[in-house]
Amino acid sequence: MTGQVETRVRYAETDQMGRAHHSHYIVWCEMGRTALMREHGASYDEIESRGVMLPVTRVEVEYRVPLGYDEAVRIDTRIRSIRSRSVTFEYEVYRSSDEALAARATTMLVCMDGDGKMRRIPEDVMEALRAAAA
Amino acid sequence: MTGQVETRVRYAETDQMGRAHHSHYIVWCEMGRTALMREHGASYDEIESRGVMLPVTRVEVEYRVPLGYDEAVRIDTRIRSIRSRSVTFEYEVYRSSDEALAARATTMLVCMDGDGKMRRIPEDVMEALRAAAA
Amino acid sequence: MTGQVETRVRYAETDQMGRAHHSHYIVWCEMGRTALMREHGASYDEIESRGVMLPVTRVEVEYRVPLGYDEAVRIDTRIRSIRSRSVTFEYEVYRSSDEALAARATTMLVCMDGDGKMRRIPEDVMEALRAAAA
Amino acid sequence: MTGQVETRVRYAETDQMGRAHHSHYIVWCEMGRTALMREHGASYDEIESRGVMLPVTRVEVEYRVPLGYDEAVRIDTRIRSIRSRSVTFEYEVYRSSDEALAARATTMLVCMDGDGKMRRIPEDVMEALRAAAA
Repeated sequence: MTGQVETRVRYAETDQMGRAHHSHYIVWCEMGRTALMREHGASYDEIESRGVMLPVTRVEVEYRVPLGYDEAVRIDTRIRSIRSRSVTFEYEVYRSSDEALAARATTMLVCMDGDGKMRRIPEDVMEALRAAAA
Repeated sequence: MTGQVETRVRYAETDQMGRAHHSHYIVWCEMGRTALMREHGASYDEIESRGVMLPVTRVEVEYRVPLGYDEAVRIDTRIRSIRSRSVTFEYEVYRSSDEALAARATTMLVCMDGDGKMRRIPEDVMEALRAAAA
Repeated sequence: MTGQVETRVRYAETDQMGRAHHSHYIVWCEMGRTALMREHGASYDEIESRGVMLPVTRVEVEYRVPLGYDEAVRIDTRIRSIRSRSVTFEYEVYRSSDEALAARATTMLVCMDGDGKMRRIPEDVMEALRAAAA
Repeated sequence: MTGQVETRVRYAETDQMGRAHHSHYIVWCEMGRTALMREHGASYDEIESRGVMLPVTRVEVEYRVPLGYDEAVRIDTRIRSIRSRSVTFEYEVYRSSDEALAARATTMLVCMDGDGKMRRIPEDVMEALRAAAA
């Protein structure tokens, strides 16, 4: 299943080229990932409060169409693959007005405990991820 | 004594008006405050690790001269006043090339414990603040 | 009339105190201002495309209640006063879950032409501002 | 030749995991790229003022070691490849205290005119890039 979130390009997110700066797309992807997990019963905030962290270890973004100030943007998030200690999400960023594909992105997250050691994804989080991926 | 830090306007900090977005000045002030405290033996990171927090409760910024991409900027930080549970910093932001005063700012921070309750500023932090203010 | 926008605290907006960093409130206020103007027929993007700029010259924020990751936030924006060359907006930032007032803010914007000189607010923008203030 | 820039992790750049949020590394890489080009006589600001833009069309970042608040960070920037209409930069982000490699990144930029059409990189910029790559 696909998680969807919508946002608008904030003025603070534009740069002097007059378009959304490329670094913000990564934050929008994070919004999509948060929403997808929340929809499937895995609140990232709650996961972290148990001492389990899912830091991002890899990001790839391919930019296709620039996005301007106040333009409505939709982020579609999917789970590409799940392993015992990591999960890979993929994203499509659309310009809402005409459904133009503005960017594609991928992020890999690994599961760590509070000391920064790799660990298995907890079973309930794994179930939520599998449900989100189904 | 005055703490000084220098930075350059990052491309990501510009907006489509072609100037540094006003929200970033607050982050630059934080850099100045961090540096001033570090110079006087009060590492904010170390303070926080003891469960003492100094969140910002008030910000005022007056913008005078716009700053463009890659322009060198200097932030001068001073302590305006110290109370038992709060401290007020003031800042001047200069464009380095011609010493133009680009902005003035003030922030008030209060001292809290890990539960978010107001508490007295610890004595060693107080001493560092007094030294910084002298 | 009051413009309202809603957002959620993004993970990227949290800091190591576990709350939304104070600089982001200024960006949220900008979202509120953009929405209020858009509702009253004054698209800020369209204004700028005519060579008229409304840079922020003064910001004040008073922070009351911290906001955590993924918390829903509502920004209410009002116009406090309008002059021939400037306009002052005020904002209330609410935590949506319990309507707690998280912050109050004020921003003053001045009207400039493309060369950075002060100028009168164009008549159609003035009308939109008056309608928004009514 | 390698361009080097140094920065410190700003408090505003930390997230509630207590580390620099992954989106900021992209901004640090931009600082490195800006510095490398400036060192070789190609001011990006001056290039843009001639109506030539170099938007980022691809970003890859691999994160290895987390970076904490106020940690000194060094970014080494190199040019990987130059084509007539695009240039690829690569970056290594180091934790200054122990030279730990914190991240590796790559960005591809394409050359566009003011209307967003692909164009050849201007000859003087190309020379600066070649000098930077030598």
